[in-house]
Amino acid sequence: MVADKGKKSKVVEEDSENVDGELVLSIEKLQEIQDQLDRVNEETSEKVLEVEQKYNELRRPVYSKRDEIIRAIPDFWLTAFLSHPALGGLLTEEDQKVFRYLVSIDVEDSKDVKSGYSIIFNFSPNPFFEDTKLTKTYSFLDEGTTNITGTEIKWKDGVDIANSAGLEKKGSKRPLAEESFFSWFGETQQKNDSDGMTDEVAEIIKEDLWPNPLKYFNNEADEEDFEGEGDADADDDEKDTDCDDDEVPDEDENGEEDDS
Amino acid sequence: MVADKGKKSKVVEEDSENVDGELVLSIEKLQEIQDQLDRVNEETSEKVLEVEQKYNELRRPVYSKRDEIIRAIPDFWLTAFLSHPALGGLLTEEDQKVFRYLVSIDVEDSKDVKSGYSIIFNFSPNPFFEDTKLTKTYSFLDEGTTNITGTEIKWKDGVDIANSAGLEKKGSKRPLAEESFFSWFGETQQKNDSDGMTDEVAEIIKEDLWPNPLKYFNNEADEEDFEGEGDADADDDEKDTDCDDDEVPDEDENGEEDDS
Repeated sequence: MVADKGKKSKVVEEDSENVDGELVLSIEKLQEIQDQLDRVNEETSEKVLEVEQKYNELRRPVYSKRDEIIRAIPDFWLTAFLSHPALGGLLTEEDQKVFRYLVSIDVEDSKDVKSGYSIIFNFSPNPFFEDTKLTKTYSFLDEGTTNITGTEIKWKDGVDIANSAGLEKKGSKRPLAEESFFSWFGETQQKNDSDGMTDEVAEIIKEDLWPNPLKYFNNEADEEDFEGEGDADADDDEKDTDCDDDEVPDEDENGEEDDS
Repeated sequence: MVADKGKKSKVVEEDSENVDGELVLSIEKLQEIQDQLDRVNEETSEKVLEVEQKYNELRRPVYSKRDEIIRAIPDFWLTAFLSHPALGGLLTEEDQKVFRYLVSIDVEDSKDVKSGYSIIFNFSPNPFFEDTKLTKTYSFLDEGTTNITGTEIKWKDGVDIANSAGLEKKGSKRPLAEESFFSWFGETQQKNDSDGMTDEVAEIIKEDLWPNPLKYFNNEADEEDFEGEGDADADDDEKDTDCDDDEVPDEDENGEEDDS
C-alpha cells in the first residue's frame, strides 16, 4: 500500500534527505494550521446557529399571530398556492376542493435548526380524509443524506384522490397537475445531496411561500377583487415602502456599496 | 397600498361590502405582521454577518501563518491546483510554467463580508508578465447582479499565453486545457444570478481549494514522494481502487484509474 511504501522508508534518497525532511515538517505544520482553521470554522457555524435559533424563537409568536389572522381570511392558502408561479400548477381540481379545508400551514425547524424541518398542513374536518394534520418531515443525517417521512393519508372511502387521478406514483417526476399534490406526502425515499436531488416543493414552501404568503395572496386578490392600479410586480414594490409604521429603511435604501 | 386601493374602489358590490371591509382589514393586519417578520429577518442577517465578520478576523492571522509555511514548500499551489479534480484540468503546459512563480493565493472577503470578495494570485518576478499580483474581484450589487473585474495582465513580449492557442501535448496524463487559465482574469462580464450563471472557477477556489489546499496537495504528494500522516483522502483513494486488486501498484505508473 502507498502508505507503507512511503512511510518511514527512512528517506533513503541520498541527497534529498534534508529536502524531504523539511517538506514533511512543513506539511505537518500546515496540517496543524488546517486543524486550527477547522476549529474556527466549527465555532463560526455554532455561533451562526445560535443566532438563527434565537431569532427563530423571536419569530415564533409573530407567526402565531399571523396564523390567527390568516384563519380569518377565506381560502387564504388555496389562493396563495394557486397564485404562486411554481406551486399553482401543482393542484388538481380535486386538490383545490380539499384545499378549501386547509386552515393553516406551519414550517417548523428542528430545535437545533440544523438537523431538519417539518412542513405541516392543518385541515378542518373534511369529507376527504380522516386526518386533520398532514406532515412532511426532512431530517438531515450525516454525510448529506436527507431522511424524508410523510403522513400516510387516511382517505375516506371512494375519495383517495392521491391514488386515483395520477398513475405515475413512482416518485421521480411530477407531471403537472395530473398527479394530486397530496401524493407529495407519500414521496419519502431517502435523498442524497450529492445526487443533486432536491425536493423543490418543500423548498419553495419553506423558503418562499411560508416567509411571505401575502405576496402571492395579493397577486390574486389584486387581479380579482381590488382592481390593482399597476401590474402585480409594481404593487409588490410599493408595499415594501408604503407601510407607515415601518421605521426600518428598506435594504435598497441603506445598501452602501463600496467598490473595492 | 392594498388598503387604499380597497377603499378607493368604493366597494360597490352592495352586499359584499362588509365582507370586503373585513378582508381589507385582515390584509392590512397581515401586512403589518409581514413587516415585523421582515425586520426580524433583517436583524438575523445582520447578526449572522457580525458573527462571520468576527470569525473572519480570527481566521486572518491563521491564514497569514499558513501562507508563510506554504511559501516554503516548492510548487505548493501548482501541485494543489493540478491535484484538484476540477481545477487540475484548467492549466495548460504553459500555465504550469507560470504557476511555478505563484508564491501565494489569497481570498479576501469584502470588509462587510456580504458585498463581495477578491481572489488574489501573488507571483514572484517572472519571465511571463510584468505583474506580481493578479486579482479577480466579485462585487455583489443589488438585485442579484455581480460585477466582475480582473487584472489586465501585462504580458511580456512574445509570451502572451492567455491569447495564444494552447498546444495539447500527446501522451499527457490528463487532457490539457485548450484555453489558458490566465484568460479567466479577463472574463469580466457582469453576471446576473437569475441567469443561473456562476463562475465555477472562482467558487471552487474560494469554497474548496482555499479553505484546505493541503487536502489536494497531499493527494499528489502521496503518489509521488511520501506519505504524510495518512489522512482521510489518501485512504479514500486507496479504497476506491481497492476493489479490483488488493495490491495497488503505483497509481500513476499504469495511469488508468477507474472512477467509481
